[in-house]
Amino acid sequence: MGPALALGADRGRFIVFEGGEGSGKSTASAAVVHRLEAEGIPVLHTREPGGTPAGELVRGLLHEPLAPWAELFAFLAARAQLVATVIRPTLERGEHVICDRFAPSTFAYQAHARGLDSVIVRTANAAATGGLEPDLVVYLDIAPETGLARKRGEAEAIRTGLEDLEFHRRVREGYLLQARSAAARWTVIDAGLPPERVAEIALEAVRATLHR
Amino acid sequence: MGPALALGADRGRFIVFEGGEGSGKSTASAAVVHRLEAEGIPVLHTREPGGTPAGELVRGLLHEPLAPWAELFAFLAARAQLVATVIRPTLERGEHVICDRFAPSTFAYQAHARGLDSVIVRTANAAATGGLEPDLVVYLDIAPETGLARKRGEAEAIRTGLEDLEFHRRVREGYLLQARSAAARWTVIDAGLPPERVAEIALEAVRATLHR
Repeated sequence: MGPALALGADRGRFIVFEGGEGSGKSTASAAVVHRLEAEGIPVLHTREPGGTPAGELVRGLLHEPLAPWAELFAFLAARAQLVATVIRPTLERGEHVICDRFAPSTFAYQAHARGLDSVIVRTANAAATGGLEPDLVVYLDIAPETGLARKRGEAEAIRTGLEDLEFHRRVREGYLLQARSAAARWTVIDAGLPPERVAEIALEAVRATLHR
Repeated sequence: MGPALALGADRGRFIVFEGGEGSGKSTASAAVVHRLEAEGIPVLHTREPGGTPAGELVRGLLHEPLAPWAELFAFLAARAQLVATVIRPTLERGEHVICDRFAPSTFAYQAHARGLDSVIVRTANAAATGGLEPDLVVYLDIAPETGLARKRGEAEAIRTGLEDLEFHRRVREGYLLQARSAAARWTVIDAGLPPERVAEIALEAVRATLHR
């Protein structure tokens, strides 16, 4: 399973922001990072699949249509590199990491919504992360109709096919199933609330995890 | 495991050329393709990890140092895309495919030599290929000392570290173990023979597979 998980008790906390399209997770995570830094708490803010040169290449690769398993393995390649070269060394130095998207995205999009064999996806993901799991997942929950309209603009959202909408409904379902089965480590926030309120609730959850 | 393996009896044959650095596999496969085409037998010649826009990006990605699992998943992403968009459609049209490197490289380099968990590697590879396996593997066998000297030039080969040499010895061992356990589908050729002789033996094995 790759390098052993050598993360001691005084390691930094690993916090992941998740959510469907237009849920506002990047805005919320940026606000939380900003507030923590203002208080003198250094946090490394990164995102998937970017964050390393390899990851940025993978991000470019995702602009072309990929076969489902090709997409999965491209994400896992970027994740393995990001964990090995950025996330794990930072946590081991005792610093905190906030990452936009991580394994929960894979389970929601590729396994639950796309229908890839979830046992294989889990096994491969565990190899990519070397067993690293988030201490906290902040999930911004939003109805796909609302999220897509926010992200793409009302007019285009109306043109969004029903099939596309159905896919994003399954993504949401995939997130909520994970939140239910790992409730202690997940915070679900109604992303329909005003952005300042969302950031406020997220900050509270993050603080609780940092002080744990 | 992805799309079902819908390859009928009248599908094309899938032939893979394998070998360590400097074994001459590209030269041999090109010679075989050239000879078959001269006889009016059309063959698609491709290579890993290139062959698709996604694959070429992955090839670029491999120029930077990747964590072992990142490297594995980058190769599998390229393979999944190559199988889905190039190899499988070609075979289903009844045409033959000759590919330089495929899953046997992964088992030799990443699993056997690099030491990644071979059960996980096999599971993930089967997902990437949708279960597609070569009808024939032509393996060009060469001592690493000789292959590296050919590839890099004598002077640089002398500077090659012992650790590097040890790695390539394990790669060769990984290939030979596969050849032994799937002898009916593997042809092992002494790559120390003159290139024309290597191509001749390879062509014979390929012909036998095409007529099977």
